[in-house]
Amino acid sequence: MELWKISLDKYNTNDNKKYETLFTLANGNRGLRGALEFSSKGNRGNYIAGIFDKSQSQVTEIVNLQDPLGFNIYIEDEKVDIDECDLYSFKRELDMHNGVLQMKFIATTKKGKSVEIKCERFVSRNKTSRWAAKYEITPLNFDGKVFIENYIDGSVTNSTWDVMNKTKHFKVKNIYDSNPGIALTIETNDNNIKSIELTTLMGENNKGNIFKNRRYSEFGEVVSEVYETFMSEGKTETIVKYGISISDKDIRSDLIAEGTKELKDFIKEGYEAEVEAHSNIWRKIWDEIDIKIQGDEKAQIGIRFNLFQLSASAYAGDTTVSIAAKGLHGEGYKGHVFWDTEVFMLPFFIYTRPDVAKALLMYRYNTLNGARENAAITGYKGARFAWEAADDGLEVTPKWGVDYDGNAVRIWTGDEEYHINSDIAFGIVEYYRATNDKEFLVNYGIEILLDTAKFWQSRVEYNKGNDRYEISSVIGPDEFHEHVDNNVFTNYLAKWNIEKALFFKEWLKTEDNVNYKVLCSKLGLNEEDFNMWETMTEKMYIPMSEDGMIIEQFEGYFDLEDIEIEEYDENEMPVWPDFKGNKLGETQLLKQADVAQLMIMLPEEFSEAVKKANYEYYEKRTMHKSSLSPSMYSIMGLAVGDRHNAYKYFMKAIYTDLEDNQGNTDFGLHAAAAGGSWQSAIFGFVGLRVNKEGVLNINPWLPEQWEGLSFNINWKSSRIGISISKDKIEVDSTCEATVIIYDKSYLISDKKQLVVAR
Amino acid sequence: MELWKISLDKYNTNDNKKYETLFTLANGNRGLRGALEFSSKGNRGNYIAGIFDKSQSQVTEIVNLQDPLGFNIYIEDEKVDIDECDLYSFKRELDMHNGVLQMKFIATTKKGKSVEIKCERFVSRNKTSRWAAKYEITPLNFDGKVFIENYIDGSVTNSTWDVMNKTKHFKVKNIYDSNPGIALTIETNDNNIKSIELTTLMGENNKGNIFKNRRYSEFGEVVSEVYETFMSEGKTETIVKYGISISDKDIRSDLIAEGTKELKDFIKEGYEAEVEAHSNIWRKIWDEIDIKIQGDEKAQIGIRFNLFQLSASAYAGDTTVSIAAKGLHGEGYKGHVFWDTEVFMLPFFIYTRPDVAKALLMYRYNTLNGARENAAITGYKGARFAWEAADDGLEVTPKWGVDYDGNAVRIWTGDEEYHINSDIAFGIVEYYRATNDKEFLVNYGIEILLDTAKFWQSRVEYNKGNDRYEISSVIGPDEFHEHVDNNVFTNYLAKWNIEKALFFKEWLKTEDNVNYKVLCSKLGLNEEDFNMWETMTEKMYIPMSEDGMIIEQFEGYFDLEDIEIEEYDENEMPVWPDFKGNKLGETQLLKQADVAQLMIMLPEEFSEAVKKANYEYYEKRTMHKSSLSPSMYSIMGLAVGDRHNAYKYFMKAIYTDLEDNQGNTDFGLHAAAAGGSWQSAIFGFVGLRVNKEGVLNINPWLPEQWEGLSFNINWKSSRIGISISKDKIEVDSTCEATVIIYDKSYLISDKKQLVVAR
Repeated sequence: MELWKISLDKYNTNDNKKYETLFTLANGNRGLRGALEFSSKGNRGNYIAGIFDKSQSQVTEIVNLQDPLGFNIYIEDEKVDIDECDLYSFKRELDMHNGVLQMKFIATTKKGKSVEIKCERFVSRNKTSRWAAKYEITPLNFDGKVFIENYIDGSVTNSTWDVMNKTKHFKVKNIYDSNPGIALTIETNDNNIKSIELTTLMGENNKGNIFKNRRYSEFGEVVSEVYETFMSEGKTETIVKYGISISDKDIRSDLIAEGTKELKDFIKEGYEAEVEAHSNIWRKIWDEIDIKIQGDEKAQIGIRFNLFQLSASAYAGDTTVSIAAKGLHGEGYKGHVFWDTEVFMLPFFIYTRPDVAKALLMYRYNTLNGARENAAITGYKGARFAWEAADDGLEVTPKWGVDYDGNAVRIWTGDEEYHINSDIAFGIVEYYRATNDKEFLVNYGIEILLDTAKFWQSRVEYNKGNDRYEISSVIGPDEFHEHVDNNVFTNYLAKWNIEKALFFKEWLKTEDNVNYKVLCSKLGLNEEDFNMWETMTEKMYIPMSEDGMIIEQFEGYFDLEDIEIEEYDENEMPVWPDFKGNKLGETQLLKQADVAQLMIMLPEEFSEAVKKANYEYYEKRTMHKSSLSPSMYSIMGLAVGDRHNAYKYFMKAIYTDLEDNQGNTDFGLHAAAAGGSWQSAIFGFVGLRVNKEGVLNINPWLPEQWEGLSFNINWKSSRIGISISKDKIEVDSTCEATVIIYDKSYLISDKKQLVVAR
Repeated sequence: MELWKISLDKYNTNDNKKYETLFTLANGNRGLRGALEFSSKGNRGNYIAGIFDKSQSQVTEIVNLQDPLGFNIYIEDEKVDIDECDLYSFKRELDMHNGVLQMKFIATTKKGKSVEIKCERFVSRNKTSRWAAKYEITPLNFDGKVFIENYIDGSVTNSTWDVMNKTKHFKVKNIYDSNPGIALTIETNDNNIKSIELTTLMGENNKGNIFKNRRYSEFGEVVSEVYETFMSEGKTETIVKYGISISDKDIRSDLIAEGTKELKDFIKEGYEAEVEAHSNIWRKIWDEIDIKIQGDEKAQIGIRFNLFQLSASAYAGDTTVSIAAKGLHGEGYKGHVFWDTEVFMLPFFIYTRPDVAKALLMYRYNTLNGARENAAITGYKGARFAWEAADDGLEVTPKWGVDYDGNAVRIWTGDEEYHINSDIAFGIVEYYRATNDKEFLVNYGIEILLDTAKFWQSRVEYNKGNDRYEISSVIGPDEFHEHVDNNVFTNYLAKWNIEKALFFKEWLKTEDNVNYKVLCSKLGLNEEDFNMWETMTEKMYIPMSEDGMIIEQFEGYFDLEDIEIEEYDENEMPVWPDFKGNKLGETQLLKQADVAQLMIMLPEEFSEAVKKANYEYYEKRTMHKSSLSPSMYSIMGLAVGDRHNAYKYFMKAIYTDLEDNQGNTDFGLHAAAAGGSWQSAIFGFVGLRVNKEGVLNINPWLPEQWEGLSFNINWKSSRIGISISKDKIEVDSTCEATVIIYDKSYLISDKKQLVVAR
């Protein structure tokens, strides 16, 4: 059971922000940071996916909404403030199996009153507007009056920790002494989106209602209700806080009427029924997503944390939102969506929860107009997806940031990191390849493939002297090097993007000719364009070493000062070598996988020898300054037979947040690292990949201490279970399927387990 | 110099509230609790005298207004929060001589940045709308960006510590990016009184303005401006925060226009000029109020604290406000005015700052209509002053409170503590006796004396059987006994009140006959009434012991269980004796001086023998459960020759707040104890009193360790300086005056010092 729990046994105020992130409860629609009710320290956060606002901040950002968590216990005239009490038996636990956050502690106030408090909280996956908390309160050495305050705080801002960027994105619109409970609605400044929080308390024991009096108050932007009760030594009283959170983001509605009805229904159905329905859903999700690791408890808990929080960040119910770089777990990167989604997180969803993967891709389809506007604004054609996107797909990358030394620096990624377009095309093709979802491809996917290809058509530059197509002044995944020409990751994927557009347009022409014609008409594409695309794919410039073995990351990269990493710290992470007076961009040092990233995304496109040569070259030059890098190198290493770093990088990836090894877990989940963790296990250790012919391959290698690894994936119309132990591999499938194991092909029959010796 | 300072050398978050009270800066018009800018813990308070509101609270209360103190320093991305930094060299000091609050400390942030911060703050007595703070900031081990945030917080409520009574008394009306600075106006809920706070920062060094950027923000009920600057190791930068606080309580005005103009003027004149003008005024006030004690530093500092904070609570500029029981220092007793003002505080002002005493009495005159309404509502005639009064004189005593055990109890003081009427009459007569201010007496004082007498006329009950006037069902100063009949303090002072009304009405008839007639007409009084009054004074029932020596506190008191105090704690304060199963009100135990109080107020009315007998009887039955009691018993003890408790009681009185010996300094100053401290020194040790013939007497006795005591008083048109040392008494006077010293009469000539041997 402990293998399902993230625990905190020692309270330290300074860790509050970190645990708010780790203990966030999210259901895809909204995220509620795991704030501790009884401390005022931290950065509380309540986000609804897709509610963005700019106001006077530099760029549009996810709105930190009114906080519904407010809950205070007063023992007579003393507030139970965890930072001012003596604490005993403190424990917080995230029960990932059931999706419930638990806490208990004994606090002794300054006047010597001791009380045991147990709480649990959940944000429902059953009805996404519902959340609740249950408090069990036991006086340990007194009888007396206890006051319970329930409040909603509308004084919330974004970026509370950053005084020059702190912004309030909404106005408190209405405050209600609703019946039941209290409610507070807000309206965002720019788009006038309204959201409501309604909450109330119910306290009952075997004699009925335990509350004697209620006092309702409005304090400016705060609404409060206080209940008076009498508690007796040794007697536990249970109080349930019911909450409803809805917005009119999608449907304009009478929030207070609807919310009041929903709150009444929730109370009627009761806490226990809802938490049970909620946990059932989580347990079903676990059947789809779990990776069981035998013989390594630390790895087991760690991987589950990543799968849990990544799954919590999305659901199939909303096709207008995607997963932010920091999930629904914090305000880092402003709640923006990056290539992180398609390249790092999407594979997990494609292979475990394809309906969610589809919803994520639909976000890109639903923001295509924004992408078209981005292209038009910057002088190009087709669709140019934003490097950072929010609600409408328009580019929202900040133009200015702060470097390691606190100096203002111009951020060029929004101008130059074009590869996002191909990354999205990659996601579409990967999704279709694994799911065979023709409906998606026909109605949405191909339109994106064609319009991104059209963008590349307008973006590439023809070099007459060399008779080749080039893309100059870009940034690749390795952001240490800006304004580079012919970054291979960019060029190769642009070429690939166009190839896939050509391939699927041909396919569509046959499959659904009417749709094909409508689409060509809509996008203004004709045979002339397609001929041009053919030429471009043939003549795209891919810089290489003279022997044709090593891809040159970008044109001129090999001419830079060649500095190799020679020292590694106690965690075996690279130590900065001496730059010899050069600027970072003047060296061959990389921030993260770039050429390697390409080979991980398209393994079927490169020979084993080329992959190995490039891995060996670039691995010694990569500083892993992105949380995305270690997991990718572990996959690549395993693919080329270098196993020595695989486990270390895997553990580093899965403990990115749990051990806060980037130092910024306070600001949200490293959602891409979470996706990378899944990839590292499945694409890395299991060696799962799809070959050129579209057949599933596995090629497992497990770390010495692992006794077994098992998981399920969706593949086309099948659900395939794979279990790897020291001496054998067991595979079953709901439908007939072909799987190549260690280069040998097996046909798995429906409901018959295949066992292959290792 | 240290004898002028209250110092705190060790920071403890838990003491913040207490020091907010002790370090309050007030100028009679407004009080700003001494909150520490760099801590979020405490109960900040900003009060303007006379701004009251009820809203949903139980009774009308002083409004805790928007907080203008907001000031944060961010070293790069770290806020200097004193509760989260390592602290060195911490010191706060209240410089009472200059009326300036100072602080300095060195803080080291979590990231290891050390900074020295020095601040001083004042609330101007020169222009009461002005306040300012000066910050000197020195980076000790870094160069870097520093952000300074200035903000005004409109999210303030009253009773933040009391969840069932927490109330917000205003709405935030407007928020301004004013030029200069920021501003926030509020409007009270009931009476729509508006007030504005405007503040801004100025940072200059020898190169000019040190600020690089400014960011203005509105966060709901908070307005903020942040300035960016760069600071260098070892280099001190000075930042001044200028503030303007005005309300339209008295004059409706365009607050933002007026405030902006005032803020500009203030900046133009500058911090140094204003603090100098302010300190000059304080030093002049000290010339009037100081009591110098040689040979006892603790007593010297202690008495000065009381004189300082009492003087800070009032000024002559507003005749519509009085001093609340807790000064302008906190929300205890809701900012209400009690008998505390006239009986405990007023003598200090009468003898040191008679113009302020007059303003305080004018508050009673200006709320006479409220007093008349109180009488009418309760079925009486004339004026019935409220036991607790706020802005309009109407009775605002809460009807319900909480006893020692936290149970709800009905509070009867507002219904039964009638003696407040005579206490105010006493203040008027005492003021006139010392000042000879005929203008006040003719135009205001006599009207109060007559209308309170008229109240008594309607209140007393004629007992036909005994042919006497009685007053049944009252509460005297000793609140342990409720619903008692013929409390002597009440009856005696009612009689005295009527006598004084008769005396001064006769005086007025001669002095200003027109005014006399107008007044009789206005108040509906005629000779029949006056005859009735004569009879009442003759036949007022004063219960006595059979031998006529001991006054019976109230009818039947001697029949109660007679329990004497037998044990005293380590502070020589009474230990509760065994009640033997009785309720407190069924015993002879007293909360505070009652019969003794009467004899202190009217010493000339009782013989030495009677005073001594009563002192001896009641002292052993008095629990001193009011902060007013010890100082009174020290005076009474000295008057009857019992010196053994005098010093102990005096020190207890003057350290009421400094040592928080009532345990509630958090909620405000014990203003009556402050007044009692002055009385204890002057009426007690100096033995100053006015005899029946109206001649000033002194009869000094000093504690052994005191080498000398000196002070000044105003007496009629003279200013008399008195200096007492071990072997002599020196007296001088600005005009000719008669003073009786140790029962011998001296005529002091103008400008010639009288020396009398001891």
